[in-house]
Amino acid sequence: MGDSQPAMARLGAQSQQVLGLFFVPGGRWAAVTLLVLPGLIDAHVHLREPGGEHKEDVASGTAAALAGGITGVLDMPNNVPPITGGRQLARKRALFEERARCDYGLFLGAGEQTLPSTQDAAEAVGLKLYLTPTYGPLRLESLGALLAIFRSWPAATPIAVHAEGTSMAIPILLAQLTGRRVHLCHVARADEIALVRVAKERGAPVTCEVTPHHLFLTREDARALGALGQMKPPLGGMEDVEALWRNLDVVDLVASDHAPHTLAEKQGADPPPGVPGVETMLPLMVTAVYEGRLSLERLVELLHEGPQRVYGVRAPEATVEVETGGRFEIRAAALHTRCGWTPYEGRRVSARVRRVVLRGRTVFEDGHVLGEPGSGRRLLPV
Amino acid sequence: MGDSQPAMARLGAQSQQVLGLFFVPGGRWAAVTLLVLPGLIDAHVHLREPGGEHKEDVASGTAAALAGGITGVLDMPNNVPPITGGRQLARKRALFEERARCDYGLFLGAGEQTLPSTQDAAEAVGLKLYLTPTYGPLRLESLGALLAIFRSWPAATPIAVHAEGTSMAIPILLAQLTGRRVHLCHVARADEIALVRVAKERGAPVTCEVTPHHLFLTREDARALGALGQMKPPLGGMEDVEALWRNLDVVDLVASDHAPHTLAEKQGADPPPGVPGVETMLPLMVTAVYEGRLSLERLVELLHEGPQRVYGVRAPEATVEVETGGRFEIRAAALHTRCGWTPYEGRRVSARVRRVVLRGRTVFEDGHVLGEPGSGRRLLPV
Repeated sequence: MGDSQPAMARLGAQSQQVLGLFFVPGGRWAAVTLLVLPGLIDAHVHLREPGGEHKEDVASGTAAALAGGITGVLDMPNNVPPITGGRQLARKRALFEERARCDYGLFLGAGEQTLPSTQDAAEAVGLKLYLTPTYGPLRLESLGALLAIFRSWPAATPIAVHAEGTSMAIPILLAQLTGRRVHLCHVARADEIALVRVAKERGAPVTCEVTPHHLFLTREDARALGALGQMKPPLGGMEDVEALWRNLDVVDLVASDHAPHTLAEKQGADPPPGVPGVETMLPLMVTAVYEGRLSLERLVELLHEGPQRVYGVRAPEATVEVETGGRFEIRAAALHTRCGWTPYEGRRVSARVRRVVLRGRTVFEDGHVLGEPGSGRRLLPV
Repeated sequence: MGDSQPAMARLGAQSQQVLGLFFVPGGRWAAVTLLVLPGLIDAHVHLREPGGEHKEDVASGTAAALAGGITGVLDMPNNVPPITGGRQLARKRALFEERARCDYGLFLGAGEQTLPSTQDAAEAVGLKLYLTPTYGPLRLESLGALLAIFRSWPAATPIAVHAEGTSMAIPILLAQLTGRRVHLCHVARADEIALVRVAKERGAPVTCEVTPHHLFLTREDARALGALGQMKPPLGGMEDVEALWRNLDVVDLVASDHAPHTLAEKQGADPPPGVPGVETMLPLMVTAVYEGRLSLERLVELLHEGPQRVYGVRAPEATVEVETGGRFEIRAAALHTRCGWTPYEGRRVSARVRRVVLRGRTVFEDGHVLGEPGSGRRLLPV
């Protein structure tokens, strides 16, 4: 492979574009542009284990992650039963130790009747609070419980919040008043990102994420997709999508909110909200880079530096090689998530993950997940 | 009348206790302790005109105010039609000029489709925003509309907000971020007043009020009262009532949220929320003073200084004479509100309003409202 010096200079030390030579059917070699990225973290996934293994489990979900060029995932606590205490967290951690193919961090959750214990904070990558209805029973509606949590939760561990619309003001204010760091999950609307911008400008201790589906799909797509386009927060209008792109400078990280459900569940009478995404996020985002929507530096900030900074973890030593410039199609049949579908079915992208190397071992290559269950490690605090 | 010097010293210049001699039936004189207070403002009333005159109108509502020792009222904009623009505000002001027996200030309202015009700000005593459902169609649910309002509304005119529970965080944050002053109406819960305390301690530009019904009634009373004990926010538990009293030091004013509906409406299938209160607030609060729950200075702060400071108006020159130390009973039959009932029916109080003098004229004396419609004036900005 030959170095592409000008590109390298532009990309900085953490990523580079190289010329890759690949053996292709017919006994010939093909030269492609390879983007070499550092280890990437998807800071918002639902791998559904324990309790939802028919949708996804740790082994299938982390296989999907590696196939998507993701070397670390932060898994949400709305399992069955929900992860609201040290015992559930320890049990879930044992599951991940045994079955994860990529690195991981685990969230603690909280409900009105299950306020979090501060002594569990050290074991969790963050505390996740659900302020508006979504999948699962975890929900915090009372101001008293929220005040108590913000006052007692250790300031070093961020509080990640699912809030939508006006309710997004709640965690921002509580963070300001109590000196806690708050991370706003899946900011999805023009007014939400406007609020985040003002709050950050005024020095509120707030970070935020956006998801690929809120960056690449609109409620027009939701109409065509039916239940396969339903998630929380729901898809917005084109004005929301454009506002998210326009305000990407106040976004700290992009995370998939990978939330798989089976096709049968999604096509049933009362479809649960959520779409898979861990495997399609990087190809979509790299395509956006090559369409000029963001720089490669910004991509690395959003998927490598941002998650580490927000959650205080260290990304594993890894390289992710992405072939760019081709024309590829997203097909559920080629994905590794157990749920078996994608809201991006048939979508053209100009990037695909060729190889992922984690701690010196090739864990994914050309469609094949090579990382074994149990080879993933817990993401350590910096 | 003889001055009671020690009491005067304690009360400061604005109020005094004097010995009053009254002629009583049977040709004799009775000596009673009279509390002489300055002009009092009820900063939160719904006098229902225009559009709800069968419940109350400006003449009956301001008669009730004077009978309750209140010389100025601030009237809310959820009329029929709602007061959301300069034209409606001018029309309502003309009504008050013609019919008010006490002084008044008028709020402008706003809905999703009727954002307030900043040029109407000078005519309004404040902007009222409804963030959670209550009586009438005014309601703001979108973060975008709220952000736009807080950014554009003139900083000099306070924004009064109906919010409950977690939604109370929204106006506090927006006030902080945009540098607007926000007044939180009818704080009713232990966690709400706890939030207000923290916000004030951190310097948020926030003021708040509590209502007599949230200070004197609980959800136990609501059970006994049925629909006559239903209002927004609803009555709380004893722990809420105690928290409000305990945190009275962070409360800027007490206001009645006088919200009359007819008995027929309240006893109907879908009773509207709201209770009358302008006429019973002062006797209840003075009784609390004599029960040692707050000082007389604090009472004057909450009903005289607080409303002026929060809304930037000047209380009219007035004296309110309250007989104290007796045993009186609140009876709807003796009240002046058109609605004809009170949630305090039969309640014992130790104070009653004997006389109100407004700008040198006796406007209420011993059960008789003497102030004429049209004698009230618009409360002027300081």
